[in-house]
Amino acid sequence: MAAPPFSFELTATSGEGARAGVLHTRRGSVPTPAFMAVGTHAHVRHLSVDDVKSAGSPIMLGNTYHLMLRPGVEVFRPFGGIHRFMQWDRPVLTDSGGFQIFSLPQSRTIEERGALFRSFHDNSRQLLTPEKSIEVQQAINSEIMMVLDVCIDSTTDETGTREAMERTHRWALRSLAQRDAVDTGQALFGIVQGGVFPALRRESAAFLTAQPFDGFAIGGLAVGETKTELHEMTELVAALLPREKPRYLMGVGMPIDLLESVKRGVDLFDCVIPTKLAQTGYAFTWRGQRRVTRTVHAKSDAPLDPECLCPICTRYPIGYLHHLMKGDHSLGSRLISIHNLSHYQQLTERMRAAIVAGTFDALHAELAPRLSAKVQ
Amino acid sequence: MAAPPFSFELTATSGEGARAGVLHTRRGSVPTPAFMAVGTHAHVRHLSVDDVKSAGSPIMLGNTYHLMLRPGVEVFRPFGGIHRFMQWDRPVLTDSGGFQIFSLPQSRTIEERGALFRSFHDNSRQLLTPEKSIEVQQAINSEIMMVLDVCIDSTTDETGTREAMERTHRWALRSLAQRDAVDTGQALFGIVQGGVFPALRRESAAFLTAQPFDGFAIGGLAVGETKTELHEMTELVAALLPREKPRYLMGVGMPIDLLESVKRGVDLFDCVIPTKLAQTGYAFTWRGQRRVTRTVHAKSDAPLDPECLCPICTRYPIGYLHHLMKGDHSLGSRLISIHNLSHYQQLTERMRAAIVAGTFDALHAELAPRLSAKVQ
Repeated sequence: MAAPPFSFELTATSGEGARAGVLHTRRGSVPTPAFMAVGTHAHVRHLSVDDVKSAGSPIMLGNTYHLMLRPGVEVFRPFGGIHRFMQWDRPVLTDSGGFQIFSLPQSRTIEERGALFRSFHDNSRQLLTPEKSIEVQQAINSEIMMVLDVCIDSTTDETGTREAMERTHRWALRSLAQRDAVDTGQALFGIVQGGVFPALRRESAAFLTAQPFDGFAIGGLAVGETKTELHEMTELVAALLPREKPRYLMGVGMPIDLLESVKRGVDLFDCVIPTKLAQTGYAFTWRGQRRVTRTVHAKSDAPLDPECLCPICTRYPIGYLHHLMKGDHSLGSRLISIHNLSHYQQLTERMRAAIVAGTFDALHAELAPRLSAKVQ
Repeated sequence: MAAPPFSFELTATSGEGARAGVLHTRRGSVPTPAFMAVGTHAHVRHLSVDDVKSAGSPIMLGNTYHLMLRPGVEVFRPFGGIHRFMQWDRPVLTDSGGFQIFSLPQSRTIEERGALFRSFHDNSRQLLTPEKSIEVQQAINSEIMMVLDVCIDSTTDETGTREAMERTHRWALRSLAQRDAVDTGQALFGIVQGGVFPALRRESAAFLTAQPFDGFAIGGLAVGETKTELHEMTELVAALLPREKPRYLMGVGMPIDLLESVKRGVDLFDCVIPTKLAQTGYAFTWRGQRRVTRTVHAKSDAPLDPECLCPICTRYPIGYLHHLMKGDHSLGSRLISIHNLSHYQQLTERMRAAIVAGTFDALHAELAPRLSAKVQ
């Protein structure tokens, strides 16, 4: 098998575990730490690809679960994948569908062969196996594929967590075999599970890092555990992953979580928070979270965040954003989404610059209280 | 009183009555025939100002009725008007609120002093007088203001139509007086009423053209009359309006209606059709109307309209637009709205070029069957 056109270059480290690097993909390079906008249905909600680019996003995440149901693999095939279909020419990472199926507790069954569930469109029976997930991700033609994993709640007991982890491991091997059966040059990441149990996390990391994955994700977090547990598990797993491969913390999180996780050695993130909170008028600023819908902003000619470099803050008054949000208009959600994505992007860029300069701890000390604050 | 910084230049005529001209305003020139995108709530639904510009729109319409209720004049004042508030630097025409109040038959009363209605936000009692309408439009600071008129259904009998017309005339004089009391340099157009009664239309045109308006609208159409009545009334009134002033047919219409009305001497249009129909996947092409949601488009890599020059058709496959619309996503409505507005813009530009070249009748013969067609 030829080496896939994917590699990770570690550029610098700073502080306890913070890393700066570059993901090299067939559709260009992604400096890390990096945050991926979530393009669930082949678009980020309300945003065009130009909007996402205007926020500076270098890579997008697509949801295999949603895309396999609509538009379906048969639509991606004539386009050669998602890029030409949606006119996004930068890298795409696809998740495996595992997390979305986990989120359907009333209507799914997990068996050894795969996950059985009903389509949210037509209620038809669907079977997602590890092999099927890879096939769908191959049709989507993402740069980075994820193995199908068994997701569980963080409150699951150790026995249940072990069962899910061991099945995740078996599915990981089946995913690798399927990837190698039809090698399309796409990278494949394994997902470390084990809940909040350190021994299981160690076992999972040991098992998966012995396999030829192109990178490793830390899964099963941001699903109900405490912030302390999140940070402890992240730190524990990151330290067990190979230096020379990228580390992706799935589904995390708030800006402060990115800061804390980069400190512990994470390179890659995705989360719906910046675009989801934008729908209700929540915006992230360098002085803390701000709610655009507050009446105090109605007549204000000031930008949403005077310290922000994004195309929204450098143009629109917050009074206009307030007006759009009070009218429950998609345009308001869209403009705030662009700002929030840009805020995340600026945050990753600031962290990267500090890591390269060897001053990450100072940046952490400066930003931690600000990112957690709430401002009017 | 100083002459307002507004003028109309008649450039060329062609065929029966088609005219090419230029509206000169303090925020730039608008070649005519021109179509105005409808920015009801200080934005065109789903569209940013850059989206509207990408469609080529040279002028936007704002709805005084909606803007007086939200955000309200007190919000526009600190911004010096709507332009800085919404970051639109091209001309704006505001309607007077008359048509919106006409559309609230259950909850409004028309008296001599003005229109009484309840706010759609807080159910508060509101009084819109001719003077108040001008005051609101002055706060919005549009380039072109419209007089408050009494709108009626096209099926109203001659007595009722005459009453409404005569009140419209009295309100027109009050509007002029209010404009002259605080001259802000904004243009003011009168509105010819008279329903489908030729004698009343003649009387209304005679009364209003004797007043110092900067332009004239043909009102009271696109409210239930037949296409024949629409064209007959348009032709009759346009012929009675002064050559040297712009003519605006309010609320019209489909592309074929623009073609037929330009033929009869109209210069300016507004309508929600291109953006409203986009919400349900209807698109206008040079071969006729097309419904993007049809299953036949699902896997198609072709543009929505191969003959269209817009930023959507030159980039996105119709299969992607189909996918977005099937998901009921605002992004799909937005991209089709940009296309439809661009189609209208391209239509006005083609008509203008033909008028200047003296070949409008040939263009009419070529386009009339195409614009009325439906294609898959």
